[in-house]
Amino acid sequence: MLRYLTSGESHGKSLIAILEGMPSNLYINVENINRELFRRQQGYGRGDRMKIEKDNVNILSGLRGNITIGSPIAIEIRNKDYENWKEYMKTIGEIDLQSKKVTKARPGHADLVGTLKYDFEDVRNVLERASARETAIRVAIGAICKEFLSNFNIDFTSHVVQIGKQKIKNNFSFNYIKEKSEISQVRCVDENFEKLFIDEIKRGKYEGDSLGGVFEIRIKNVPLGLGSYVHYDKKLDSVLSAHLMSIQGIKGVEFGLGFEIAFLRGSLVQDEIYYSNEKGIYRNTNNLGGIEGGVSTGEEIIIRCVMKPIPTLYKPLNSIDVNTLENYKASIERSDNCAVPAASVVAENVCAFVIAKFFIDKFSGDNMNDIIKNYKSYMERLEGRGWKKGI
Amino acid sequence: MLRYLTSGESHGKSLIAILEGMPSNLYINVENINRELFRRQQGYGRGDRMKIEKDNVNILSGLRGNITIGSPIAIEIRNKDYENWKEYMKTIGEIDLQSKKVTKARPGHADLVGTLKYDFEDVRNVLERASARETAIRVAIGAICKEFLSNFNIDFTSHVVQIGKQKIKNNFSFNYIKEKSEISQVRCVDENFEKLFIDEIKRGKYEGDSLGGVFEIRIKNVPLGLGSYVHYDKKLDSVLSAHLMSIQGIKGVEFGLGFEIAFLRGSLVQDEIYYSNEKGIYRNTNNLGGIEGGVSTGEEIIIRCVMKPIPTLYKPLNSIDVNTLENYKASIERSDNCAVPAASVVAENVCAFVIAKFFIDKFSGDNMNDIIKNYKSYMERLEGRGWKKGI
Amino acid sequence: MLRYLTSGESHGKSLIAILEGMPSNLYINVENINRELFRRQQGYGRGDRMKIEKDNVNILSGLRGNITIGSPIAIEIRNKDYENWKEYMKTIGEIDLQSKKVTKARPGHADLVGTLKYDFEDVRNVLERASARETAIRVAIGAICKEFLSNFNIDFTSHVVQIGKQKIKNNFSFNYIKEKSEISQVRCVDENFEKLFIDEIKRGKYEGDSLGGVFEIRIKNVPLGLGSYVHYDKKLDSVLSAHLMSIQGIKGVEFGLGFEIAFLRGSLVQDEIYYSNEKGIYRNTNNLGGIEGGVSTGEEIIIRCVMKPIPTLYKPLNSIDVNTLENYKASIERSDNCAVPAASVVAENVCAFVIAKFFIDKFSGDNMNDIIKNYKSYMERLEGRGWKKGI
Amino acid sequence: MLRYLTSGESHGKSLIAILEGMPSNLYINVENINRELFRRQQGYGRGDRMKIEKDNVNILSGLRGNITIGSPIAIEIRNKDYENWKEYMKTIGEIDLQSKKVTKARPGHADLVGTLKYDFEDVRNVLERASARETAIRVAIGAICKEFLSNFNIDFTSHVVQIGKQKIKNNFSFNYIKEKSEISQVRCVDENFEKLFIDEIKRGKYEGDSLGGVFEIRIKNVPLGLGSYVHYDKKLDSVLSAHLMSIQGIKGVEFGLGFEIAFLRGSLVQDEIYYSNEKGIYRNTNNLGGIEGGVSTGEEIIIRCVMKPIPTLYKPLNSIDVNTLENYKASIERSDNCAVPAASVVAENVCAFVIAKFFIDKFSGDNMNDIIKNYKSYMERLEGRGWKKGI
Repeated sequence: MLRYLTSGESHGKSLIAILEGMPSNLYINVENINRELFRRQQGYGRGDRMKIEKDNVNILSGLRGNITIGSPIAIEIRNKDYENWKEYMKTIGEIDLQSKKVTKARPGHADLVGTLKYDFEDVRNVLERASARETAIRVAIGAICKEFLSNFNIDFTSHVVQIGKQKIKNNFSFNYIKEKSEISQVRCVDENFEKLFIDEIKRGKYEGDSLGGVFEIRIKNVPLGLGSYVHYDKKLDSVLSAHLMSIQGIKGVEFGLGFEIAFLRGSLVQDEIYYSNEKGIYRNTNNLGGIEGGVSTGEEIIIRCVMKPIPTLYKPLNSIDVNTLENYKASIERSDNCAVPAASVVAENVCAFVIAKFFIDKFSGDNMNDIIKNYKSYMERLEGRGWKKGI
Repeated sequence: MLRYLTSGESHGKSLIAILEGMPSNLYINVENINRELFRRQQGYGRGDRMKIEKDNVNILSGLRGNITIGSPIAIEIRNKDYENWKEYMKTIGEIDLQSKKVTKARPGHADLVGTLKYDFEDVRNVLERASARETAIRVAIGAICKEFLSNFNIDFTSHVVQIGKQKIKNNFSFNYIKEKSEISQVRCVDENFEKLFIDEIKRGKYEGDSLGGVFEIRIKNVPLGLGSYVHYDKKLDSVLSAHLMSIQGIKGVEFGLGFEIAFLRGSLVQDEIYYSNEKGIYRNTNNLGGIEGGVSTGEEIIIRCVMKPIPTLYKPLNSIDVNTLENYKASIERSDNCAVPAASVVAENVCAFVIAKFFIDKFSGDNMNDIIKNYKSYMERLEGRGWKKGI
Repeated sequence: MLRYLTSGESHGKSLIAILEGMPSNLYINVENINRELFRRQQGYGRGDRMKIEKDNVNILSGLRGNITIGSPIAIEIRNKDYENWKEYMKTIGEIDLQSKKVTKARPGHADLVGTLKYDFEDVRNVLERASARETAIRVAIGAICKEFLSNFNIDFTSHVVQIGKQKIKNNFSFNYIKEKSEISQVRCVDENFEKLFIDEIKRGKYEGDSLGGVFEIRIKNVPLGLGSYVHYDKKLDSVLSAHLMSIQGIKGVEFGLGFEIAFLRGSLVQDEIYYSNEKGIYRNTNNLGGIEGGVSTGEEIIIRCVMKPIPTLYKPLNSIDVNTLENYKASIERSDNCAVPAASVVAENVCAFVIAKFFIDKFSGDNMNDIIKNYKSYMERLEGRGWKKGI
Repeated sequence: MLRYLTSGESHGKSLIAILEGMPSNLYINVENINRELFRRQQGYGRGDRMKIEKDNVNILSGLRGNITIGSPIAIEIRNKDYENWKEYMKTIGEIDLQSKKVTKARPGHADLVGTLKYDFEDVRNVLERASARETAIRVAIGAICKEFLSNFNIDFTSHVVQIGKQKIKNNFSFNYIKEKSEISQVRCVDENFEKLFIDEIKRGKYEGDSLGGVFEIRIKNVPLGLGSYVHYDKKLDSVLSAHLMSIQGIKGVEFGLGFEIAFLRGSLVQDEIYYSNEKGIYRNTNNLGGIEGGVSTGEEIIIRCVMKPIPTLYKPLNSIDVNTLENYKASIERSDNCAVPAASVVAENVCAFVIAKFFIDKFSGDNMNDIIKNYKSYMERLEGRGWKKGI
């Protein structure tokens, strides 16, 4: 069983996570983790904070000389700005509670609900933890999972398919997405749309407004058979959607054709099954996005998520002071006005955790040697049934 | 902690669930549970099996004279057709394994993946459990949760907003939906669209094809503060989406404006916050669907799900024999060709479990007396903060 | 992941459990389950109720013709006396709440704490669920796990080592215990002590008193490597003790030499490790009871539990009426006065669940074919390290 | 739900834990945590390493100015010796794998099982995590829980009742234990026995041998009603024993009279119940150790654990080289030869976590204000039933 807990506030000393359940003898290239953290910080529309906080991971335990030893892995990402926030944020000792106190709840954030639920007078106690800054540590967790999964050729990519009113609709191949998205400022695979996306963001910024959008995640070489239909909480799509919906700002998750599938007749959406001596069992379509009955089909897993526009922006919104209850119209200065490209990177890594978890549940979690043998033995059995993918 | 396990095959003796964690001294009206089971069985587009299986729940434990005693609640729904299937399906003793053997995998079902994963030669071993028949017992679980939640005026409704190409877009009130959906054959609140939906289903049926669609769930009077932003797995929307995505055929879940939110600027989507002496803290919009930062806002929770068209239908699809690997073109006779209205009832009840779980986590789960006091005490504290809903 | 929930009241219709996570293609001999239920009902010192309730299991789902299909397994044990209790115990409909109402709390039972916690006026609402009757369904669960584990030659036995003041101290072999305990009325492997145990029980009965005791569980052929030291909640002894301590009446659990180990110096208690070409790695002692650092060593697992004397008996104890608070001296008629032999059977089966759970976590849970291959592959790797047991 | 994960190796940079689920607005005195860490490091029989590592906790997140904010709490204990171990233990970068390589498995440790299970050639990969050093971070977790529980007057103490052959048998009061144990080098409350214990340890040390023993934990003011009989995994004693058995070296756990209870007749062991206007419901004995039917009775919780003698010592034991399989006789120098007093402090804090977890499950976990109100409201209801403790 793979599991993790995270901690850390946005302006606290650091973000910390403990990842428990990784097998031993896995080589971890820390540059790959930092590379994912870097990818998360990119994207046209991100503000200046990203420059302050070029994230790097410190691995505090669970490895010796880059190799896992089966122990829980603790990882840390320092908040580079902490020194400036120490007197307001330090965990122990007297702090200045007034200077950075926030009493005006921002609509679209957890500010109001958090303040009431947890019985605070200072909204900062909420926003420090509710902040999307927390996704950095989840990316690091996912990046370790990617390291594990790369041993089985399981690979991830993502691209932005909509920013504001601009929406791209073609279907692209995994490799094309992987190549093009990485060289685009907005993770857009089409140059024309890239320009439209950037214009949309620029225009929003000019008008003091923010933009949401839609991104697509692709996962390839997931073996047939992760997840199960036998119980509601073992379905792969169910668990993936829980993890994706928990990313800050995500308001919808869909698999394969997603909401478009409602427009089509049944005869057009099922992915027909074929067999040939050469290919083994195969399909020509992947409308269901690589999951049937909650189980991975061996096809690419395709997921799209919608992210709402970032709540804080220049345009004044009505809200209240949580203590005095006075109404006020407030504008908030912030420099991000679109985080969709970053969210797509977060989502990739969040999915990597889920896939690794199901993979380890299925093939055991003790050590790489045993897992590889169990995996091969399974794939050989499937080959005897006519399945030739992933051999 | 509220939790449950379910069991049972589609043509087995019965579906069974155990629900653990319900407080004591809760009155359960079993007619209300049967009413939910009845609602699930309605809907234009359902086939003849629904007539065979007028479901009724048997409560096997956990109550005395309609009152919970804190013990786990076991519930059973008998499969009325079991007598005809006994010789193929009985759990113990020699059975006829040939007469009802299935070797042709149906695309769109768990047939192929299940057969390979679990190492079967008979697809029946998969389809019996993967069948949406299992949702009946989840409705019964949810119906018990509704009984609990009705003590706090928490109420549920749902309606179908799209069947095939026909899509209704207006925004309706909870009470309007609750009233109109129940008297519609397709859970459609608009008479014109009801006709269009039915035509769509009819046309599909005539052409031997099936239809998917979209439904919307509404939950009212959920108190502010269920769920939390402090950890990814405590977010209410995350857990709701996991449970909804686990319903057979669901390929997408969205909250509030959902995927439409990407088209709008940030200044238009955040739900502004106001205070007046009369109303307390309030909002005029609910674009985020009653959840901010993973926490219930006290507004209505609004969720939409897309269901894919039922896979089995008259139109022949290509597939293979899982044992011989021969390709074949097969049509499957079945009488359902649209299950969207039924799925919306399932979804309501699946949500009821999640809301009850979070409610009990927050207000304790020992007995109704203590829970009611804890709830009131919390609402009174919120009232002191300017929140007047739910008092 | 193997898991289960149970439900059912002592005089209710039935006990029900759902066991989720058993691999497919496992043959279940239902006679073996009933045999375990029978063993639980034996033992000198049991009363007449055991005669009423010759338990048999009904498997309601999860198998077809004795073979598991990967689906959750629902099992039921009917309470044969239910017909006589229906009017007081039925779950739905009006019941006679007065005739069988209990208001006097019995010391040593959950009566007082349960009544206050769950806010009852009728202690029956507590005692019906708190009763050791519930262990019958846990035996059935464990018996299924034994069926699974027997594929890997993992075997269980138990014997009673103390009744009241009589205590047997020799060390016996697994096979000797297995043979002798089954033909003894009190699961005692030594004829002289058997007589002493029975005398102790008789004398207790004559004096209207009850007896506790100690039993020992042995588990053989558990492969080296179940459980882990890497996290506190993955230790095999930790999980075993949680499950054993949850058996009604158990007040202590110890492994290997247990509490005696405190009397010995360190040099005498560690189980030294040897290697020979013939035996591979081996040990000559097993003072730690087959577990080092929370991990199974491949030696026999040895556990002892103490059971307190049954609380209800003829000798009057002081207690109160939970509603009027009046003190009273009450004697309770009951015919059991010693349940230690039965508890040892319960404990065996409770351990079987834990071992099966860890086994499946380690070797995967999909189907017997894959598990057997993964197990063999692991044992072969160990063989390469000099470990020859279990090949 | 309160939960935690820990990480860290014995000679790694630090031990880290994340504690999730602590309510907001709890004041944490970090000196109290350090005091618990200090207590764990005391005890006649501890070696020199204790001097190197005067432990202090760093709280990395989840608090602002000593007050919890509902966020996960990350804590760290630095390993002061790390600088000397860096080149052998650092997580990332090339390390010296040879100089500190261990290939001889020590009996009584996880060395052999860990090396085989996780597929290592270097036993250091096992012993670094399996080490009892890890209990330091569990003490810190428990100390935070004690801070929380002190708001409800729940208090903990412990004392050593046996070292080697010397065993103290009298029954002492909570306050007496609390006072005396803290001023004893071996946590012994009786001066004569203290001397005997120390002599036993000295003699062992002189002979190059180690000693185990038994300690007792007492917990007072736990309210009636934590835990439940309704399901096996909700029993308070079950969960306590799981956590206690997971402490390194513990081989047995018992409640109340424990294994002694088997020697007594039923009429002598049940704790009779009385009522008087003055005291409310009360008992004169506490043979069952404060738990009936898995539920806290409101009496003191009394638990004893046995710890085996520390495995590593001067006396040579037979073992093997895990890579060459050669037999060898090896003695290991180490300066600890008895850790029982330290283990009793660990156990107190491990119990504090469990009690806090059940307390929060029962009274909610959002913020101190709500919890206190829920607690009071519950105690008031109990008062109406004649229960006057804890008001």
